[in-house]
Amino acid sequence: MRRIITFTTDFGLQDYYVSAMKGVILEKAPEARLVDISHEIPSQDIMAGSWVLKNSAMLFPSGTVHLVVIDPGVGTPRKPVALQVKDQFFVGPDNGIFSLLTEEYDFKAVELTNSSFWRSNPSKTFHGRDIFAPVAAHLFKGVDLTELGTPLDDLETYRWAVPIADKDGIQGWIIHIDKFGNLVTNISDSLIDEVIKRKATKLYVGNTILDEITETFGSVPEGEPVAYIGSAGMLEIAINKGNAQEMLGVQKGAQISLVLQKED
Amino acid sequence: MRRIITFTTDFGLQDYYVSAMKGVILEKAPEARLVDISHEIPSQDIMAGSWVLKNSAMLFPSGTVHLVVIDPGVGTPRKPVALQVKDQFFVGPDNGIFSLLTEEYDFKAVELTNSSFWRSNPSKTFHGRDIFAPVAAHLFKGVDLTELGTPLDDLETYRWAVPIADKDGIQGWIIHIDKFGNLVTNISDSLIDEVIKRKATKLYVGNTILDEITETFGSVPEGEPVAYIGSAGMLEIAINKGNAQEMLGVQKGAQISLVLQKED
Amino acid sequence: MRRIITFTTDFGLQDYYVSAMKGVILEKAPEARLVDISHEIPSQDIMAGSWVLKNSAMLFPSGTVHLVVIDPGVGTPRKPVALQVKDQFFVGPDNGIFSLLTEEYDFKAVELTNSSFWRSNPSKTFHGRDIFAPVAAHLFKGVDLTELGTPLDDLETYRWAVPIADKDGIQGWIIHIDKFGNLVTNISDSLIDEVIKRKATKLYVGNTILDEITETFGSVPEGEPVAYIGSAGMLEIAINKGNAQEMLGVQKGAQISLVLQKED
Repeated sequence: MRRIITFTTDFGLQDYYVSAMKGVILEKAPEARLVDISHEIPSQDIMAGSWVLKNSAMLFPSGTVHLVVIDPGVGTPRKPVALQVKDQFFVGPDNGIFSLLTEEYDFKAVELTNSSFWRSNPSKTFHGRDIFAPVAAHLFKGVDLTELGTPLDDLETYRWAVPIADKDGIQGWIIHIDKFGNLVTNISDSLIDEVIKRKATKLYVGNTILDEITETFGSVPEGEPVAYIGSAGMLEIAINKGNAQEMLGVQKGAQISLVLQKED
Repeated sequence: MRRIITFTTDFGLQDYYVSAMKGVILEKAPEARLVDISHEIPSQDIMAGSWVLKNSAMLFPSGTVHLVVIDPGVGTPRKPVALQVKDQFFVGPDNGIFSLLTEEYDFKAVELTNSSFWRSNPSKTFHGRDIFAPVAAHLFKGVDLTELGTPLDDLETYRWAVPIADKDGIQGWIIHIDKFGNLVTNISDSLIDEVIKRKATKLYVGNTILDEITETFGSVPEGEPVAYIGSAGMLEIAINKGNAQEMLGVQKGAQISLVLQKED
Repeated sequence: MRRIITFTTDFGLQDYYVSAMKGVILEKAPEARLVDISHEIPSQDIMAGSWVLKNSAMLFPSGTVHLVVIDPGVGTPRKPVALQVKDQFFVGPDNGIFSLLTEEYDFKAVELTNSSFWRSNPSKTFHGRDIFAPVAAHLFKGVDLTELGTPLDDLETYRWAVPIADKDGIQGWIIHIDKFGNLVTNISDSLIDEVIKRKATKLYVGNTILDEITETFGSVPEGEPVAYIGSAGMLEIAINKGNAQEMLGVQKGAQISLVLQKED
């Protein structure tokens, strides 16, 4: 049973783009429960959208349809696609936005070629309204993935920076900075377990050196920096009751190093 | 059957204004599906609100009730009104916010004078909570428009700049700049068809001259400006994968000229 | 009957935090109607969150469950709690966020100690997803408050500045500045009635002196400052069709004085 359609876009909410998609969907499927995952993905930022999807989409109930429109290539030959991951459905452009899901899970995908499921005379600049929203409504109504177009074996992948581990430690990168200024790295809990174990290490980030990975913000005094494993299972750096991005002077893409200390 | 109530406001979401209206509505109509069209209309910007409504409200299913509160004149003699356009309903202040709909469609309107459909002791500064929200809930529950107040033949109109066409071409204005920095003009697809036909033309906007109207962003290299008919049926100017507002140095209200080229 | 779960957070919408909580809730209670009160509370601003809750939560229908996550102390010994106020339910951290409700209403509260209602292996940094959201879903499904943990007689209180009244008048403070730049004070309608009655008074705020308290913005010409009782029942100062915060140079916490004038 399909009850929920979610939205993940970089459209913001000051324009008619989100509400036009919702109107199109509700006109076909007025019983759908609409849930906004985010409309505040930075413009055309496929990496940020992919990160948000990875950390929330699969928590939704079975049968959820996820409409994802971060689509800088609208009107170019990039493919419109739909995919099934476990028992959830995704609709959007094939530009790497689904990479973090398709790396982690098996999937079935189709290129959206059957225009009978689209609005007639689709615009060249707003496939969200004219192709993706009506397709999401049809998936919600129970249309089978295979009716929507032709099977695709592969989707575009977004090239993510992968952390480097060697005998000296781990070098990674800041892949996301959240609303609180917390720095999220691409260094996972399990990589740390494997490489660092419980040996002494120093963590270098921005203009700061930290001596340990601890459990939560509150492990250090207010105003002090702290490293911990965040809720997405990745190493994060924060300032207890402060903003790490501002205080450490770090931007997305900055390096972070975990250096194993020599035992004397 | 009425299932959906939408919201269009300039309230933002950091205050209690939107949630107070939702509480009032759900208390009377807990079965209503609430859909946010936008709470990010710039403060007191009737033109921006009208544009968003025009491009999304009529896509919603039959029976939808649209609550619209961009209301710089709250507490002054501006009238509170409700109207029906086709089989959809609108509630809000009579300040021109409904202009773009009432220009395009027939409508029936009433001034909200029957205070038995309001909250008791309405405040002078928040008619959204005390008059418009309860009236929207009553419309949703099936109350007839005519019970809400006295008929109105005319609503206030917002004076929109109209493009000027002559033998030399078309002069128009930027009426909206979207979240991506795309410039939306008041020059419609059909006016271009009529005046320019397929003759050679030059487009002047900000510090740039363009030689043609093309289909989509991707028709030009990344970083280049491009003119095309946008998803609202109006001429737009964008930068492929860039921000036209920033790169062309153009603000809302700026002129745009389409000049027919003399054939030699 | 419980139909609605609301959300009040400082998470913003560019991260996965809100959607992860919604996924967790919908997975357990797919029939719940989710309503966003606000995700735009300023980061870690307990005072602002408390103000928004006070002015909207109790307007919602009987049985509503309010999930409130402004939680700068996550991972420290601050208690996770749930409370019942009249026939509504609240879930969140015990850090004063519920102060303005518990001052005004009787309540029953429990500390959330029964981890069988949580996600397994809760993170140390995201109790919203791992403790509060699943507890809200269980409350929604009809679990009794007392099953969730051990009774608490008192909750933390947030120390609010209280206005000072004497024979010369009232001194208060700006406790909130809204999206329009309107200044909300902690001086209530009833305190003014009691102290000032209808006697002549002068109001001092920022760089301005006002001679009267009037009914609404429109009582003064455009661009002029105006004092009135706002929709929350508190004295407010605004600029008619302008931004009082910018024009009067006033920040949250600024003093405001109502000084009784000597009769000659």
